Amino acid sequence: MNLKQLADLLGLSQTTISRALNGYPEVSEHTRRKVIEAAQRHGYKPNSNARKLATGKAGSIGYVLPVGRNVDLDPHFVEFLSGLGEHALTHEIDLSLTPAPIERESEAYRRIAASRSVDGLYLSSMRNDDQRIALVRELGIPFLAHGRAYKPADGYAFLDIDNEGAFHDAARLLLQLGHQRLAFINGDTEFTFALHRLGGVQRAMAEHGLPAGALKHHSAAMNEDSGYRLAMALYDGTKADTRPTGLLSASMFTTLGIFRALNQLGISVPGDVSVITHDDVFPFLKPESFSVPLTTTRSSIRAAGARTCERLINIISGAEADPVQEIWPVELVVRASTGPAPTAAAKPGRRESALAAE
Amino acid sequence: MNLKQLADLLGLSQTTISRALNGYPEVSEHTRRKVIEAAQRHGYKPNSNARKLATGKAGSIGYVLPVGRNVDLDPHFVEFLSGLGEHALTHEIDLSLTPAPIERESEAYRRIAASRSVDGLYLSSMRNDDQRIALVRELGIPFLAHGRAYKPADGYAFLDIDNEGAFHDAARLLLQLGHQRLAFINGDTEFTFALHRLGGVQRAMAEHGLPAGALKHHSAAMNEDSGYRLAMALYDGTKADTRPTGLLSASMFTTLGIFRALNQLGISVPGDVSVITHDDVFPFLKPESFSVPLTTTRSSIRAAGARTCERLINIISGAEADPVQEIWPVELVVRASTGPAPTAAAKPGRRESALAAE
Repeated sequence: MNLKQLADLLGLSQTTISRALNGYPEVSEHTRRKVIEAAQRHGYKPNSNARKLATGKAGSIGYVLPVGRNVDLDPHFVEFLSGLGEHALTHEIDLSLTPAPIERESEAYRRIAASRSVDGLYLSSMRNDDQRIALVRELGIPFLAHGRAYKPADGYAFLDIDNEGAFHDAARLLLQLGHQRLAFINGDTEFTFALHRLGGVQRAMAEHGLPAGALKHHSAAMNEDSGYRLAMALYDGTKADTRPTGLLSASMFTTLGIFRALNQLGISVPGDVSVITHDDVFPFLKPESFSVPLTTTRSSIRAAGARTCERLINIISGAEADPVQEIWPVELVVRASTGPAPTAAAKPGRRESALAAE
Repeated sequence: MNLKQLADLLGLSQTTISRALNGYPEVSEHTRRKVIEAAQRHGYKPNSNARKLATGKAGSIGYVLPVGRNVDLDPHFVEFLSGLGEHALTHEIDLSLTPAPIERESEAYRRIAASRSVDGLYLSSMRNDDQRIALVRELGIPFLAHGRAYKPADGYAFLDIDNEGAFHDAARLLLQLGHQRLAFINGDTEFTFALHRLGGVQRAMAEHGLPAGALKHHSAAMNEDSGYRLAMALYDGTKADTRPTGLLSASMFTTLGIFRALNQLGISVPGDVSVITHDDVFPFLKPESFSVPLTTTRSSIRAAGARTCERLINIISGAEADPVQEIWPVELVVRASTGPAPTAAAKPGRRESALAAE
């Protein structure tokens, strides 16, 4: 009996079976016992037949790892990789990383195709008009995109989250709370996810009759430095009645820097400014761990890694013959960093006189 | 002309040459020009002959990627990988990751050996009495350890930082500043680096005539949650004249949690407590980015990744025939989170009466 047969027998996914046998905490004790008993009864040995599930010959899936000037692999990657590794494990599949600078990545894809060293590969950090989709298709390598081009053509498989919807809902909440002046410290708009997020914010503003120009928008790499620098640019020396009271942030790291700037300037969250952040569900930095627990748009990038591996195996084996364009909805989780817009009458007036007195 | 010849000609390392040609910011404009001119003059084309440098046949180096219950790959890994990828790029070498749960890792190493899918591999997260060294040696796979077993035997190659010396120096600074009550929120002492760090702190204390029991020591995974939880355990409800005034922390993420706890408890840094943290030089979270810039023990884990790749290639090619045990010194960088111990006379007295009045 192989993994698939055991999964079919129990009506569980192969991933659940494997996690149960490997003692993952996500699987309930009840399910774990059921799986272990069935595995013993039917003589299933983990991994003994697993390799057969993937019809690929290399036993490996590939990724071109961006390195070089101005490229920082970041903590998002390690979480994605954790999820991918968890699933790859259940199929005894390796992950082959080919380092390449952005400007020579097509060379790397050609080399991978020529060497036949992988059965398929995934693309990530998708760009507005991503050239890699046509390239890997031309090279005949089975692939899945994590993310998508801005206007995705038919016929290629991707897994993405609904970045547009997520940031639409986040901006709408701020507007519903009475915030009229919004700012967005976005990721790099070279990438599609950042463009989608910007589109979502603009749609919510249009629905509330606000012009697109009413948004203060900054685009930068998602890290503490950028968050600090751009929040200082937005808030240092500004008056309470003109500065943005609703602030959207692209990542937890960006928000670390935003909080440092706001603390330094004596601007309180959510009294003066409401903040909403995208949360990729890092185990090492949680929204509850900020001085004010963060309201977030939430989607696990680890789960996306596992699903990317699962679908890529299906694409390689032919189980996903017609390319699927899968988009995950994103939750909006309200915590303490959002509140009503400060009333124009009371606070800004007081602030101005305080400033005038200095 | 190949990369090595060009490097020899210019008296630069192969990594520097490659970085110069790839436009890395670490290389000065002067060096970059010199390299580009020499490359043009001698007809060197990046990567055209690079593969020949590694005599391995697979063109790939391996790593067994820990996955499963209670294993969180963390941001340290992504930084190490960035450095490794940068160097691998200069030799057109891929990195093959084989996911495995800790309890079945020996199986993974055997599978790698049997498949001959890599030319060599590196070990990481080294443990006190690490069984993998004997295993990979028995399997005949060329390898390099990043880190080492607690009492390293002769005859295997490793790259490590001087964790013992780093934390000795950090603890000594606190003692020199008059701190008598020290605490250490360490990494998991299952791993050698944490044991070495503990040993360094204890040595400094012994040199100052303090018993080992005077150290409050906690061991945990290095993340924000642990830092918060353990700092709360150390400081919540304690009096100023009994609690630790000198605090050592294993990582930047741990220290994020420590600062959250101390802020919540109204304990100031460095007025009430001095803090020293180990800094792996993450680009996404810097010691200057804390509300109080952090005093740190500093060593770039990205540089360690690049050097691991460089040496592993040398080991595979035979250029490093006798195993080298390389240990990097660690800098102690003083910033604002350390200061003199609070004087026993003034502050604690005030505090106690304040508490008594409540």
